[in-house]
Amino acid sequence: MTPPPAPFYPFGRSTGHGPDIDLHPQLARDGLWLGRLSACQLLLMNDSRYPWLILVPNQEGLTDFDQLPERLMPGVHEDIRHASQALRNLFQPDKLNVAALGNVVPQLHIHIIARFCQDAAWPKPVWGLLPPLPYAEKRVQEQTARLCAALGLG
Amino acid sequence: MTPPPAPFYPFGRSTGHGPDIDLHPQLARDGLWLGRLSACQLLLMNDSRYPWLILVPNQEGLTDFDQLPERLMPGVHEDIRHASQALRNLFQPDKLNVAALGNVVPQLHIHIIARFCQDAAWPKPVWGLLPPLPYAEKRVQEQTARLCAALGLG
Repeated sequence: MTPPPAPFYPFGRSTGHGPDIDLHPQLARDGLWLGRLSACQLLLMNDSRYPWLILVPNQEGLTDFDQLPERLMPGVHEDIRHASQALRNLFQPDKLNVAALGNVVPQLHIHIIARFCQDAAWPKPVWGLLPPLPYAEKRVQEQTARLCAALGLG
Repeated sequence: MTPPPAPFYPFGRSTGHGPDIDLHPQLARDGLWLGRLSACQLLLMNDSRYPWLILVPNQEGLTDFDQLPERLMPGVHEDIRHASQALRNLFQPDKLNVAALGNVVPQLHIHIIARFCQDAAWPKPVWGLLPPLPYAEKRVQEQTARLCAALGLG
C-alpha cells in the first residue's frame, strides 16, 4: 500500500496558520484548509469535480448536527450562509447541497457543495459515487485564492 | 403509466389537519404528513428501510438552505434538533444524517435520517440507491403513532 498523501495546507500550517482544532485524519487528508470563519474551520474538498467546501465546527468531540451547543449555533449558521453565498457568487450553481452525514468520518462536518445540472453526479448526491479528482497544483492555487477572496479570508 | 398514488395524510387532510403550506407534489406523494413543528411541516418519508423524517420550512418559494430568512432560522433549528432527538430516542441509530439537497425536488426540505451500520445503504447516503420500500398499512400506523408521541404531536 502507498501511504496516504500528507495533509496539504495552502497557507502553511508550519507557520502557525492552521486549524484551531484537531481534524480527523481523513478530513485533514481530503481537505485543504482555507481558514477560520465565525465558528468553524473551513476546508476545500480536494475534488475538482465540484466546488465543495467543508465546515468543521470549532468544538472537538461533536459527531451529530443536533449536538451543536446553543452558543455555537448562530456562528455555524452564519458560516453556512457565508460559505454558500461565496459558492453561489463565484460559480452560479444550479443548486447548493448542504449536509452533515458523517457515516464515514465521525467528526461533525458540514458539506456545502455547488451542484450543476451537468456535473458528473447530477442529480445524485456526490458522496461515494466517483473517486475524487484532486486539483492540479496550479488549479488549486487559483481556486483557493478565488475562494479566500470571496470569503474575506487570508 | 400507472398514476402516482394519492397523497396519504394519516391525520386526515380533509378534516383541515394538513400542511399549512403547499408541498411540492413529489414531497406530498413520497411523504406522510405528521404535523407541524415550530417553523416546519413534518413528514415521514414513506420508505420503511430507514426511519426518515423531512422538515419543510413554513415559507413557500424557498429552494436553498442559505435562503432561510433570519426570522425562521431559530425555529428551523429547534425543529432539526427536536426531530433528531425523537429519532435518536426511539431508534438509537448509529448516526443521524441531516441534509438539504434538493437536486430532484426544488422546494427546500431537510432530511433527517436515522442510520444504522447494518442498514441497506450503509455507509453510503440513502438517496437514489434503492427504490423506496413503502410501509405496510399496519406498520405505518404504528410508526406514525410512535413518532407523533415522541414529538409531542397529535
